[in-house]
Amino acid sequence: MERLLKKCRIRNQLVRECMAECLGVYTLILFGRGSVAQVTTAEDKKGQYLSINLGFALGVTFGMFVSRGVSGAHLNPAVSLSMCILGRHPWIKLPFYVFFQVLGAFMAAATVGLQYYDAIQMYSGGKLTVMGPTATANIFSTYPADYLSVWGGVVDQVIGTAALLLCVLALGDQRNGSFPDAFQPVMVGAVVLVIGVSMGSNCGYPLNPAGDFGPRLFTYIAGWGMEVFTAGRSWWWVPIVAPCIGALLGTLIYELMIEVHHPPTLTELQTCQEATEVKPELELERVEPE
Amino acid sequence: MERLLKKCRIRNQLVRECMAECLGVYTLILFGRGSVAQVTTAEDKKGQYLSINLGFALGVTFGMFVSRGVSGAHLNPAVSLSMCILGRHPWIKLPFYVFFQVLGAFMAAATVGLQYYDAIQMYSGGKLTVMGPTATANIFSTYPADYLSVWGGVVDQVIGTAALLLCVLALGDQRNGSFPDAFQPVMVGAVVLVIGVSMGSNCGYPLNPAGDFGPRLFTYIAGWGMEVFTAGRSWWWVPIVAPCIGALLGTLIYELMIEVHHPPTLTELQTCQEATEVKPELELERVEPE
Amino acid sequence: MERLLKKCRIRNQLVRECMAECLGVYTLILFGRGSVAQVTTAEDKKGQYLSINLGFALGVTFGMFVSRGVSGAHLNPAVSLSMCILGRHPWIKLPFYVFFQVLGAFMAAATVGLQYYDAIQMYSGGKLTVMGPTATANIFSTYPADYLSVWGGVVDQVIGTAALLLCVLALGDQRNGSFPDAFQPVMVGAVVLVIGVSMGSNCGYPLNPAGDFGPRLFTYIAGWGMEVFTAGRSWWWVPIVAPCIGALLGTLIYELMIEVHHPPTLTELQTCQEATEVKPELELERVEPE
Amino acid sequence: MERLLKKCRIRNQLVRECMAECLGVYTLILFGRGSVAQVTTAEDKKGQYLSINLGFALGVTFGMFVSRGVSGAHLNPAVSLSMCILGRHPWIKLPFYVFFQVLGAFMAAATVGLQYYDAIQMYSGGKLTVMGPTATANIFSTYPADYLSVWGGVVDQVIGTAALLLCVLALGDQRNGSFPDAFQPVMVGAVVLVIGVSMGSNCGYPLNPAGDFGPRLFTYIAGWGMEVFTAGRSWWWVPIVAPCIGALLGTLIYELMIEVHHPPTLTELQTCQEATEVKPELELERVEPE
Repeated sequence: MERLLKKCRIRNQLVRECMAECLGVYTLILFGRGSVAQVTTAEDKKGQYLSINLGFALGVTFGMFVSRGVSGAHLNPAVSLSMCILGRHPWIKLPFYVFFQVLGAFMAAATVGLQYYDAIQMYSGGKLTVMGPTATANIFSTYPADYLSVWGGVVDQVIGTAALLLCVLALGDQRNGSFPDAFQPVMVGAVVLVIGVSMGSNCGYPLNPAGDFGPRLFTYIAGWGMEVFTAGRSWWWVPIVAPCIGALLGTLIYELMIEVHHPPTLTELQTCQEATEVKPELELERVEPE
Repeated sequence: MERLLKKCRIRNQLVRECMAECLGVYTLILFGRGSVAQVTTAEDKKGQYLSINLGFALGVTFGMFVSRGVSGAHLNPAVSLSMCILGRHPWIKLPFYVFFQVLGAFMAAATVGLQYYDAIQMYSGGKLTVMGPTATANIFSTYPADYLSVWGGVVDQVIGTAALLLCVLALGDQRNGSFPDAFQPVMVGAVVLVIGVSMGSNCGYPLNPAGDFGPRLFTYIAGWGMEVFTAGRSWWWVPIVAPCIGALLGTLIYELMIEVHHPPTLTELQTCQEATEVKPELELERVEPE
Repeated sequence: MERLLKKCRIRNQLVRECMAECLGVYTLILFGRGSVAQVTTAEDKKGQYLSINLGFALGVTFGMFVSRGVSGAHLNPAVSLSMCILGRHPWIKLPFYVFFQVLGAFMAAATVGLQYYDAIQMYSGGKLTVMGPTATANIFSTYPADYLSVWGGVVDQVIGTAALLLCVLALGDQRNGSFPDAFQPVMVGAVVLVIGVSMGSNCGYPLNPAGDFGPRLFTYIAGWGMEVFTAGRSWWWVPIVAPCIGALLGTLIYELMIEVHHPPTLTELQTCQEATEVKPELELERVEPE
Repeated sequence: MERLLKKCRIRNQLVRECMAECLGVYTLILFGRGSVAQVTTAEDKKGQYLSINLGFALGVTFGMFVSRGVSGAHLNPAVSLSMCILGRHPWIKLPFYVFFQVLGAFMAAATVGLQYYDAIQMYSGGKLTVMGPTATANIFSTYPADYLSVWGGVVDQVIGTAALLLCVLALGDQRNGSFPDAFQPVMVGAVVLVIGVSMGSNCGYPLNPAGDFGPRLFTYIAGWGMEVFTAGRSWWWVPIVAPCIGALLGTLIYELMIEVHHPPTLTELQTCQEATEVKPELELERVEPE
């Protein structure tokens, strides 16, 4: 068996990373959207809003465990974009990452649809609606609360994603307390949990363009129809655009208020010095770094 | 006292493993099924669905803490079967593991029945029923929701157990982020928690043939009668068969999408090279691994 | 300030251990009983049964953090007794530990009574009752559910405390998976959490003779009167006697099913060998341990 | 990008610390007060009291992750004050820390006000009130329960903050069990969680002068008016004064019952000895520390 499996080894790094991102987002959305399906179709008798918060939080945790050793566990186009802008990820990989993130989310939505087929039929009386008392489209992707303006939704998602990136960058910043790498997925899950309990009621904290658009595409195809794009004053583009802005904003805030001010490490000092020393290398005295 | 205890030492490895599996599953089912008994008999006043999710999650965690140093903490025939098929566990041990897993679950159900004897009498009015408003058989093993078809139940359990194995394998894969071994039971418990909040409403996430069949046998003997096998369109076989299929599926998905593609370790490279070198050993030049 | 504090240093080991046990149990009961006070007086609007489970769980965790470096964090006469019987704690210290554990619990109950004075007055209409719709004695110590027989209560507490000790011993058993010592308080808290969600509805999981008797004494003195001892068919002695039996039972089960069967460590082998070699030491050949 | 950011590096240590405290308190209040906003405006349909407890707990955790590597993560004037009195923090920094803590809390309240603008308008019908059925001032800072006397509020906050400091000092005391530094923020968050479930119903556990006063100032400016200071029998000064007393009390209790009695470390013994040896240094024999 082991030997048989080894025959399938793929050596291409990008293919491996794309598969990992795809399976990671799949895991995240399978648990996250599954918990919404459970709470919705069981009408709060098998879990409440906190279950949904836990579903997404632990979904992120295990999505990261599945993928981080291979692709670094972005799991979110807004995160990938920030990494590219910061120069920590090659731009060339961005479209591949995004495509496979959306694909993973789409397939996870399809799995949730399959697993909850009977339940959705029973709950909705067989009629798949986007709005109304037995609406089921919100199982798969987010829609804004009635009172929320489009502008309010954009602000909500910019703040939410900025808070996400702020905390994730703090966790990963080895000069700000050095949290062990092995436990990062657990604490990133905790960030998503706290965002869920504190920023979830306006529009369901999408935070993730792929995690929202992939399942929306599924509902469009699977029978909910065009309304998934028109509902909530054409809400669908907000969870795509706003998280990208928010991710950048959060990154900037953390960088400008904390990270850039860390005293330079010894390595940096040496690199810096060497750069300065390129010219005076002919001189005899060499200044030793303290 | 210590000396007295030492006289009882058993040296046989298989006996020790069977006792550990038995006590591990006992712990898991004692806490898991106890939480269902509490929520059912106290009619949601002493806990809600989330308590049940926590009961099973921490049950798995402490079941693993009790047994993992001795038997590796399978606690689930579907897991044991997958390990055998992957070649990581000897086939000869499988029937012993399964028997003692079922035995542990049976004894745990008996303990829950004893502990909640007064409560079950009060709640059910002394009449042990499998279906109806004061049914108590569902305290001990799972029954499908009214709306669920048998096929829907099979799909639900295949997906659920596949998700379980996918996450457990990712946690244990030392080349995918290396999560510390000592904390594995905590995170495996978290996997069971997230499956409970996202895949629990259709049929109560059994996921475990032994954990479902052992207690069902107890209810059959203890007075609930033949209906425990006939109820839910003869539901009883689904939590036995479907988790085994799901465990295999989850294993395959993780292996084919992540694990087999890891770059070979140095040890593997050397083994591989030695295999190749059997013949050309007489040649003088030896290729060094890079 | 630091220097001033150092003048108070006490060097006596037993005094230090007693103070640590006292403060540890104080912390445990302050948080545990505080959470019951909050849920009771706010009538489920500021937390539900799960809050109480969390209050006791984290109470144990922080009670252990406060005391474990000094006294080993027993925090429970039943645990101290088991340790003495197993020969891991000197019998001579037992009465001191128990006294200060009860004292800590008494003072914590007094603090909760002080902190919730206004709330209890408001909730009970100024009348401190043990039974009835606005009973408040159950804030401080446990009373059985109406349906529970005395025998059922004893069984419940024996099973509950046995489960507690079983898990705690597994966590601390370095040859069964080696869980890091630093995180023990967190996981022992988790054991108390899972016992609370799965064994709490019959009689409120006292599990701890000191934690139940100390606060009961407080209610007797503070105005609830003799009824705190007579209520629930003289329930008060059950949480004192049953946990001691349960702790022993749980210890025996873990020892007999897991711990004594661990293969001997190298140190043990050598000790054992030396014992055997006392006589043949005159012979010339010495068998080396492998 | 990286290079551009580096141009902004600030080298002044105090400025860096103030920014870190500001951002840390910002994170804490953003999540904590956001969770109150969510539960209040969604009328318990998107979370319950436990969500608020989690919001503040994880708010503290991530506030600490954001700041601890730079400023030590006080995040609370009462903590800063205690540290100064104990001689572990310079008095000169105290006013700066406090100012930036209040500033961070003020800005976080403004952010929550912005994010929940639509929701607050909908919930309150556009009328910002401090008291009454649709009061929204309690989203931003604490008000006492109707039954609570001022004296009762002071007692509540003194006990609450004392419990906080007691646990935090125990966690950080390396001679009392040595909990790893990297996980401190998680466990300090857990302390705040348990205080929330056990001491939250009287007056909403402010515990933090800056975290309560900053947002109160925001509500005063943003349209709730003078009543934010007069409501609850001029409650506003209690969460400023009482936590400072409580923090001192908790510090004293832990120091006097646990920390000062630790046996001196080798370093302390040597320092002590050297001090004693100043005079007898001429003698030939030197006593070695054991």
